[in-house]
Amino acid sequence: MAKELTSRSENYSQWYNDLVIKADLAESSAVRGCMVIKPYGYAIWEKIQAELDRMFKETGHVNAYFPLFIPKSFLSKEAEHVEGFAKECAVVTHHRLMADPNGKGLIVDPDAKLEEELIVRPTSETIIWNTYKGWIQSYRDLPILINQWANVVRWEMRTRLFLRTAEFLWQEGHTAHATEAEAVTEARKMLEVYADFAERFMAVPVLKGVKSANERFAGALDTYCIEALMQDGKALQAGTSHFLGQNFAKAFDVTFMDKSNKLDYVWATSWGVSTRLMGALIMTHSDDNGLVLPPNLAPFQVVIVPIYKNEEQLAAIDAKVDEMIPKLKALGISVKYDNNDNKKPGWKFAEYELKGVPVRLALGARDLENGTVEVARRDTLTKETVAIEGVENYISDLLKTIQANIFQKAYDYRASVTREVNSYDEFKVEIEKGGFLMCHWDGTPETEELIKEETKATIRCIPLNGDTTPGVCMVTGKPSAQRVVFARAY
Amino acid sequence: MAKELTSRSENYSQWYNDLVIKADLAESSAVRGCMVIKPYGYAIWEKIQAELDRMFKETGHVNAYFPLFIPKSFLSKEAEHVEGFAKECAVVTHHRLMADPNGKGLIVDPDAKLEEELIVRPTSETIIWNTYKGWIQSYRDLPILINQWANVVRWEMRTRLFLRTAEFLWQEGHTAHATEAEAVTEARKMLEVYADFAERFMAVPVLKGVKSANERFAGALDTYCIEALMQDGKALQAGTSHFLGQNFAKAFDVTFMDKSNKLDYVWATSWGVSTRLMGALIMTHSDDNGLVLPPNLAPFQVVIVPIYKNEEQLAAIDAKVDEMIPKLKALGISVKYDNNDNKKPGWKFAEYELKGVPVRLALGARDLENGTVEVARRDTLTKETVAIEGVENYISDLLKTIQANIFQKAYDYRASVTREVNSYDEFKVEIEKGGFLMCHWDGTPETEELIKEETKATIRCIPLNGDTTPGVCMVTGKPSAQRVVFARAY
Repeated sequence: MAKELTSRSENYSQWYNDLVIKADLAESSAVRGCMVIKPYGYAIWEKIQAELDRMFKETGHVNAYFPLFIPKSFLSKEAEHVEGFAKECAVVTHHRLMADPNGKGLIVDPDAKLEEELIVRPTSETIIWNTYKGWIQSYRDLPILINQWANVVRWEMRTRLFLRTAEFLWQEGHTAHATEAEAVTEARKMLEVYADFAERFMAVPVLKGVKSANERFAGALDTYCIEALMQDGKALQAGTSHFLGQNFAKAFDVTFMDKSNKLDYVWATSWGVSTRLMGALIMTHSDDNGLVLPPNLAPFQVVIVPIYKNEEQLAAIDAKVDEMIPKLKALGISVKYDNNDNKKPGWKFAEYELKGVPVRLALGARDLENGTVEVARRDTLTKETVAIEGVENYISDLLKTIQANIFQKAYDYRASVTREVNSYDEFKVEIEKGGFLMCHWDGTPETEELIKEETKATIRCIPLNGDTTPGVCMVTGKPSAQRVVFARAY
Repeated sequence: MAKELTSRSENYSQWYNDLVIKADLAESSAVRGCMVIKPYGYAIWEKIQAELDRMFKETGHVNAYFPLFIPKSFLSKEAEHVEGFAKECAVVTHHRLMADPNGKGLIVDPDAKLEEELIVRPTSETIIWNTYKGWIQSYRDLPILINQWANVVRWEMRTRLFLRTAEFLWQEGHTAHATEAEAVTEARKMLEVYADFAERFMAVPVLKGVKSANERFAGALDTYCIEALMQDGKALQAGTSHFLGQNFAKAFDVTFMDKSNKLDYVWATSWGVSTRLMGALIMTHSDDNGLVLPPNLAPFQVVIVPIYKNEEQLAAIDAKVDEMIPKLKALGISVKYDNNDNKKPGWKFAEYELKGVPVRLALGARDLENGTVEVARRDTLTKETVAIEGVENYISDLLKTIQANIFQKAYDYRASVTREVNSYDEFKVEIEKGGFLMCHWDGTPETEELIKEETKATIRCIPLNGDTTPGVCMVTGKPSAQRVVFARAY
């Protein structure tokens, strides 16, 4: 089964699609651009959700739910926002179907036209700020720290499973503050939460930075982002946190009385990550044999496969596994025992390799005699034979080792393809090789646009903790405050 | 604050609306019929979700996610299903907006009309069975036991917060089976899960039964339901589980090879509960002072309010509370300490009464001297003074007592308004008083329809564990197999 995957070197893009489908993560649906997230893929997403939700609550946020639909007129209220979203939105125009009088199935009932069209939310700033208007009068009502788990729709023309789909799942935080400083602090704090989550749970190293004006969220004053690097050398934006200034408060007339009894507009942030993270997770770690999942997000961390020739042997293995499982669970390790008799061990080995299960235990009759078990690591594809007695502690340590190892591997890869480039000629050569190019840029949208047109590279971010030695723009020779990160991106 | 609630006796419906809004559970949005679920309301919904999700997983189900949109043609494939949903659905016809050439904001771009209209899912049987077609070839692929947490849209004309909204949140289970018996068993098993959840967590007693043909889900062969009774004597359908037979398998041509190598259509169930449960929860237990929440679903079970005259007293109380909280948490009790200095104790008492917090502790300087604390129960509105030492155990027991007490109260109320009625004349009088009327009925849709037209009462269910003594229909005098449950309903 694993052999059916296209190899990465042959066709990276095809490898990705093959893997998403064959590992039972997701598939395309009958609706253009919309995916079905299958149980195994959804189980990973649930782990992502649970951990992020815990982190959001720990930082003082609460969940709520706002409508799926946005009145068309709301979109127009923030000028840049509408520019960003009007061109790719699903529009509800009617509220009823009827039988076709010509007998051809169902048609839209022309008498059921909505007075005002509704947009399926591409993001919820407008409906939320229209709601916040009713909640905020005084500084005592602030801050509001709300998150929403929801589906959103952006009518993308070219879609790819997880990476770019017409409908996707995400969380969107929307906070309201009394001061600019507090809002900026919030936007940066959530960026740190995202980076911490990406590195500690997804094992994906990320650069933290701020977007250039061209790449900013429609309606934001500043967009902070975490940028990851995939194995093909392309960048992937994994999460964004926006300082929205008073733009949405002004658009929806949300004011508050401050401590000195002065009326002012409310300051805002919004921040989100989506099922796109699944794409980042898959492309950072996986190999030609299939998925490689970080233990911290694997639906099950350990699979046990029995090796037996007859019922008697199986019964003895079953009995031993019954002893092992509670010991593993007591250490917080999730485990699946696959004693399905319809499949051979070899098939199972390939299947769980494809599905990225971090640790595989194989237990046979001889192991029982010797008091041993074979432990196979998915990340290194190596095996060892260890004593069954105390194997739970061995595995607990091993899972931590694997989590650290796949992070380090991704980190080292990124380091190996991150380099400083000082001339535009060199840039044009280097960008073909992929990776992050650290370059001086004159800070203008025009130069950025020119580079994008000529090389398909964009500024991924202006690093927050980067080298701040000034220099001169590689294209125009004008002054540059610091190097910024260029890459081709998903 | 609590005083602003309309009383139940004055206007039950207004009391409900007041309560939902003033207790910060939900509010209407700018989009007709769609609600905003506020953080306090959503926190209850999260508790409902977490427990149900655990129960679903314990019974072998996994989660997945299917598209929000359903191609129009899919709806027509199951004849009764389309009948049920085509008249109240949101229809997406376009995928882009554009600037109005006449300068009047945004208009739908006529060049962005979809080839086939998309329906925002009112329920997902059609898109899911179209997907299952690709997953099922053999009996080895069965059963499929999938649940989805999602938003759905039904374009209801008269809406009420939680009870009936155009968009609502729910879970929908969709299972596929090799045999009729297995599917029926599944549908009944999930009914038991719902009943168990309603009674043990919501503290809402429910009748389990099967719907008459008139009240069945559009496309089902049998709809099982749990029916609750609100304090105004009206019934509320709290959850349904459908045996769908082979209807959807036939509509979407989903066949499988059975063990004897014979091709057959797959058997199906679907089952769901929604944010409507919030309405049932509120209306079953709450009173004229506000919400009464069952401890098993309260966002926080205990609130501690300090009573102090000066900073020094507050500091001493703070210190004592710092000792108490870890002891409460160690017993799994959720607790909030409200030492906000901007509000007086009286305001806080009213506020937490309105919000239905099961137990309120008040701690003053004299309590510290005496080693006591005042414990107030929300359900009985009674108070006692108990020793602080060991109060965590006292509260742990008290929460169980409260959970049991509010269930018993609801159970007794239901028993007091459930009665047998034997003539249609008596029925017409009794139905005005509310409650469940147990009556003989001849089993025909015509008689049921007549009763509904003349009295607004519907058959809530044919009880699964009811008295099966036969009799004669109260309207037609024809034979009746058993008494069924009539009521007016939400």
